[in-house]
Amino acid sequence: MKNLLTLLLLLPLTLTAQKRPRDLGIKIGVMPAGALNAITDVAGVKVGQVTISEGADVRTGVTAILPHDGNIFQQKVQAAMYIGNGFGKMTGYAQVEELGTIESPIVLTNTLSVPTAAEAVIDWTLSMKGNENIRSVNPVIGETNDGLLNDIRGRHVRKDHVLNALAQAENGPVAEGNVGAGTGTVCFGWKGGIGTASRKLPEKLGNFTVGVLVQTNFGGILKVNGVPVGQELGKYAFKEALDKSSDGSCMMVIATDAPLDARNLERLAKRVMLGMAQTGGIASNGSGDFVIAFSTANKVLHETSEAVFSSAFLHNDYVSPLFMAAIEATEEAIINSLFMAKTSEGTQGHRVEELPKDKVLEIMRKYGRIKE
Amino acid sequence: MKNLLTLLLLLPLTLTAQKRPRDLGIKIGVMPAGALNAITDVAGVKVGQVTISEGADVRTGVTAILPHDGNIFQQKVQAAMYIGNGFGKMTGYAQVEELGTIESPIVLTNTLSVPTAAEAVIDWTLSMKGNENIRSVNPVIGETNDGLLNDIRGRHVRKDHVLNALAQAENGPVAEGNVGAGTGTVCFGWKGGIGTASRKLPEKLGNFTVGVLVQTNFGGILKVNGVPVGQELGKYAFKEALDKSSDGSCMMVIATDAPLDARNLERLAKRVMLGMAQTGGIASNGSGDFVIAFSTANKVLHETSEAVFSSAFLHNDYVSPLFMAAIEATEEAIINSLFMAKTSEGTQGHRVEELPKDKVLEIMRKYGRIKE
Amino acid sequence: MKNLLTLLLLLPLTLTAQKRPRDLGIKIGVMPAGALNAITDVAGVKVGQVTISEGADVRTGVTAILPHDGNIFQQKVQAAMYIGNGFGKMTGYAQVEELGTIESPIVLTNTLSVPTAAEAVIDWTLSMKGNENIRSVNPVIGETNDGLLNDIRGRHVRKDHVLNALAQAENGPVAEGNVGAGTGTVCFGWKGGIGTASRKLPEKLGNFTVGVLVQTNFGGILKVNGVPVGQELGKYAFKEALDKSSDGSCMMVIATDAPLDARNLERLAKRVMLGMAQTGGIASNGSGDFVIAFSTANKVLHETSEAVFSSAFLHNDYVSPLFMAAIEATEEAIINSLFMAKTSEGTQGHRVEELPKDKVLEIMRKYGRIKE
Amino acid sequence: MKNLLTLLLLLPLTLTAQKRPRDLGIKIGVMPAGALNAITDVAGVKVGQVTISEGADVRTGVTAILPHDGNIFQQKVQAAMYIGNGFGKMTGYAQVEELGTIESPIVLTNTLSVPTAAEAVIDWTLSMKGNENIRSVNPVIGETNDGLLNDIRGRHVRKDHVLNALAQAENGPVAEGNVGAGTGTVCFGWKGGIGTASRKLPEKLGNFTVGVLVQTNFGGILKVNGVPVGQELGKYAFKEALDKSSDGSCMMVIATDAPLDARNLERLAKRVMLGMAQTGGIASNGSGDFVIAFSTANKVLHETSEAVFSSAFLHNDYVSPLFMAAIEATEEAIINSLFMAKTSEGTQGHRVEELPKDKVLEIMRKYGRIKE
Repeated sequence: MKNLLTLLLLLPLTLTAQKRPRDLGIKIGVMPAGALNAITDVAGVKVGQVTISEGADVRTGVTAILPHDGNIFQQKVQAAMYIGNGFGKMTGYAQVEELGTIESPIVLTNTLSVPTAAEAVIDWTLSMKGNENIRSVNPVIGETNDGLLNDIRGRHVRKDHVLNALAQAENGPVAEGNVGAGTGTVCFGWKGGIGTASRKLPEKLGNFTVGVLVQTNFGGILKVNGVPVGQELGKYAFKEALDKSSDGSCMMVIATDAPLDARNLERLAKRVMLGMAQTGGIASNGSGDFVIAFSTANKVLHETSEAVFSSAFLHNDYVSPLFMAAIEATEEAIINSLFMAKTSEGTQGHRVEELPKDKVLEIMRKYGRIKE
Repeated sequence: MKNLLTLLLLLPLTLTAQKRPRDLGIKIGVMPAGALNAITDVAGVKVGQVTISEGADVRTGVTAILPHDGNIFQQKVQAAMYIGNGFGKMTGYAQVEELGTIESPIVLTNTLSVPTAAEAVIDWTLSMKGNENIRSVNPVIGETNDGLLNDIRGRHVRKDHVLNALAQAENGPVAEGNVGAGTGTVCFGWKGGIGTASRKLPEKLGNFTVGVLVQTNFGGILKVNGVPVGQELGKYAFKEALDKSSDGSCMMVIATDAPLDARNLERLAKRVMLGMAQTGGIASNGSGDFVIAFSTANKVLHETSEAVFSSAFLHNDYVSPLFMAAIEATEEAIINSLFMAKTSEGTQGHRVEELPKDKVLEIMRKYGRIKE
Repeated sequence: MKNLLTLLLLLPLTLTAQKRPRDLGIKIGVMPAGALNAITDVAGVKVGQVTISEGADVRTGVTAILPHDGNIFQQKVQAAMYIGNGFGKMTGYAQVEELGTIESPIVLTNTLSVPTAAEAVIDWTLSMKGNENIRSVNPVIGETNDGLLNDIRGRHVRKDHVLNALAQAENGPVAEGNVGAGTGTVCFGWKGGIGTASRKLPEKLGNFTVGVLVQTNFGGILKVNGVPVGQELGKYAFKEALDKSSDGSCMMVIATDAPLDARNLERLAKRVMLGMAQTGGIASNGSGDFVIAFSTANKVLHETSEAVFSSAFLHNDYVSPLFMAAIEATEEAIINSLFMAKTSEGTQGHRVEELPKDKVLEIMRKYGRIKE
Repeated sequence: MKNLLTLLLLLPLTLTAQKRPRDLGIKIGVMPAGALNAITDVAGVKVGQVTISEGADVRTGVTAILPHDGNIFQQKVQAAMYIGNGFGKMTGYAQVEELGTIESPIVLTNTLSVPTAAEAVIDWTLSMKGNENIRSVNPVIGETNDGLLNDIRGRHVRKDHVLNALAQAENGPVAEGNVGAGTGTVCFGWKGGIGTASRKLPEKLGNFTVGVLVQTNFGGILKVNGVPVGQELGKYAFKEALDKSSDGSCMMVIATDAPLDARNLERLAKRVMLGMAQTGGIASNGSGDFVIAFSTANKVLHETSEAVFSSAFLHNDYVSPLFMAAIEATEEAIINSLFMAKTSEGTQGHRVEELPKDKVLEIMRKYGRIKE
């Protein structure tokens, strides 16, 4: 209840107080965004978030992505993962890679709350109608470490937070910034958070949609649409000495309605890392950079008496535009997370400033990258 | 408390009532076993197990392997994993592969209790002296599905079970059969469980020790030291129809005191699958076959002000005897688990018979494979 | 010409003088073999071999496997590879893994003749009708090191040898033993060579065929159908000291008509290593153990104006019998190669004895493994 | 001889007629370049190139990188590869990944000349003093497809070209642009070629050097130091329709004197892809993007009687600055290749324009990215 209030209080602020870069004249890439410029532009994909911001010490939360509306366990989606840098605690990797499918929602949270989130996803799945007899679930839980702002050792994420995120997941606009699993994260030394973006391929390139959602908590040398903002602001990795400012992690989820099988989804996932690189991320030693990719095009039945089934697939020759879309959407999703995040104070009196948007816009103007 | 009693009641039975194959004249391979013929022959390695057998429905447990006696997080061991077949929920894979180290105990349990075990390992690590400020832990939790005998959906493993397993871990003999994470498992259609074995390389081959511990819950066509026991007993996969008798999983942990880095440990781990194959395992679609390998030779400090450190490593040319040792020890560990397991009844009235040792010995005699 | 004569002289001997183990009462596994017990039981698959045995020093050759009769480049087959142990010079890996297809014949030869074979496969492909404009070919060339018997540094394989092997490839029985790429190989200390076997799944398990062809040149402790032949004959790795007798390599090709995509073909390929393990192979440091898997079920067009195509695939739940078939066929193919090989003398006066079949049969009888 | 003349004629032109971006005021990244801003800044590394430009149709060549001056086979270097996109014919992958070492020079050429280059590297290695008895070599040959300008089907690279490149390899400045393996390549629709760059870490970050050499033949949307040059010039992938302009490939070699083992070298190699991404590369379906990484710090002896050896390694915590250096050096090496290349006409009358430097500089000025 308290959580719900917290959420109700925070969400509107997050949604309204900030502007997305695109609305400020920063246009990333050449491909058109989808209607919402969000992962939910991929038809059927739902997102639910619970923000846990309590007292001086708790700054964390949960972000859940549901590939579709039905029973995900019974109707799995084709999927793959790519590990950009494996210093992270993601669960579910081996089975997704082996079977080529995801059978659970994808849940993002903080590092030490992965088991709680996994527990909740198991609860959720076991209790779903039609799953009365299943005895195995592969929860896909991603995480980044929000321990600078959040009392992470206190493990404040509870199962009901996760179940709430799942319950309230919906199509439509996705809150960004200090919300859900992005509540306590830090990106390029500024307040990071949740970001999302999408691309809609033109008819001639297949008419497919690609959507990305990120939880940003990493570093390097920030670039905004190619502009050396990190340098201009005098804040970047290893400026003075060997620091760990670039550590953290970045969880990236990419969805598409293009009929890709697991092999091509893994290729798509690899391009998401190239999108992350556009923002100046270096995948530092301490950054767990994971990508999860799924397609909503073909459902794979958990059980079937048909040994052989027929599926539609995109020929290798036609995947490249999706790769470009993935790179653009990822870059924009990360930049969105930074623009939408707000200054936050947290545990041990730590304070992380939001990106100084006015200064950034000034820099963008100086470098001729604002379309006004 | 009840659990402890259960444990006290069960353990002696498990330890005393059965004989290991080696004591029955079944000698696997050509290399000598270590003193205990157990993973604990690798100096410093400790094993702790909690068996949870309650009422008619609960047949599960926890098996913990500790690479050494100290603070594993602060003094990591070099490690690698190999995924023989990824239909499983093992945690910790990405970080172990990326960093080449394990920083937690290895805990085995049932599929749906992985989050609980992970939670417990995080508790255990955070609360250890010297770890007051750590905010990240990579728990390595393996699992197999004991849902035939165990009410797995009830998730009866609690954190205290796991913490007990960790607390009581010790060097010395290791209980096998229906114990710990092997309490409810099924192997080749017979009662499986925990098994362990080791090999001690002669001086001329490096004098190293290799130890293996397995949680057996898989199938195929059972062979005992090459003898077609499964066929002789008329029980093997796909005999009558497409069945799922070979599904399940096999968790295999291999330890050595040879100075192998992560790369060569991954190679060692791959050979463990070849050892599994000796017993007739087929790594069926539904079997999550995972191998975790670590070396006790070099400790890797969590933090150090020395950027460059020096370590001793075994040259590639000298690893092959370790590969052969790994294969032999794995085969014997699996066969041990079958010989040491006892008939068990569990949830929904399911009953799994133990391997009919008398008949098996008879078959072994018929095929000239008993040294009496 | 000389080569052709050599071939004509050798082939009949190889084909007639030896008996396959199955014809001697050694029955491996529980599944029925195909009509020829050869990789060519998979409809459409062709094998061509050229044996190069000249003077005292040259003992090498070429074995080519063609997935189908048509233009393989234009009509690719779905494929995957698995690297059991990567100490080898196989070409083509990256592209097969990335695109999930093979677009060339698979050619096996000796280590230092890989470039010559690749050159020849490029020639063959470029010159094929319909390929006038292609400017890229991914030759898949496997190899093992026959340098004990063969003057390998002399690189006696010429392009025309390879082109001859491709030209004379045919369906039907496959020569085994000292033939083609197996002319100079050594296995478990005995003369190895080419071997092949197949399994035909019963109707209830899908009615699919699996065929394996191997080039055997590795070691460990020989087991024949589970019988410790290596120990009985007193010849196995590391018996006296650290030796390199187990080094070499094993190339294994597996074909099936089951509609498997690249992901499931890679899983099938991994099981081939489990079959190799049945014979006592340890995948020693110096052994390049590679598996190439392909399916003849779906052709993938090199070029198509249809971005989205539909294919039939086997559901994950139905692949396990294929895994078991792969293990059995691999084991039998390797044992076939040993039984069909003959004593050979080669470079530097080296002599490698054939497996002493009489003694082996005696041992098999002693262990009750001959069905007479 | 003719070739040598060609080379003599071309080299000075290539070296003198063009200016490197850095000399034009384009400063990429924040870390200082090494003295030569080339892969040869890593002490001991040598580069040799042979340009084959003959008549109207032949535009190809060879670029060789030697990790050190000695017998590379006998004194291997620690190494790893990373496959960004595997649509390519690189040889040597499996053994490098398995053993963690490179034992040959790295040679780059065109797609269909890989076998010839491999043959030459085998020749070169077998004939080296001290290698009289070796019977196995793992040549590492990379390639991109120069078939637009070059009559690639004619396979004009001969063994002596490759041997010449190896023979004339030297420390010091490295020719860039239309030279060696870059003679006929195309990048972002402009003439690509060979490029190189380096970074020298400051004392506080370890004082290590990282050098990169690239063969650029790929596409996407060109960015120069973050500036959207491709868009401004109206030339980028999929602008009008699904095109293959982004296909091709990018071979990237990274050397360092930091003591990294194979595991950390693979991580370093992965960051090279992030550097490639900075230039707007999308790793399209048809682009074989491969990275080869080696360290000159520790030599690994081919044979040794010491089973256990001691090596110095960099702790994981200290690798991140190397990752940033790799990204910066790769970006600059690619941009260098574009600035140093010249308009070229080739087979079938194809003509590829060089990057219009004047226009680009104007664009760079417009976007405030020239330091004048």
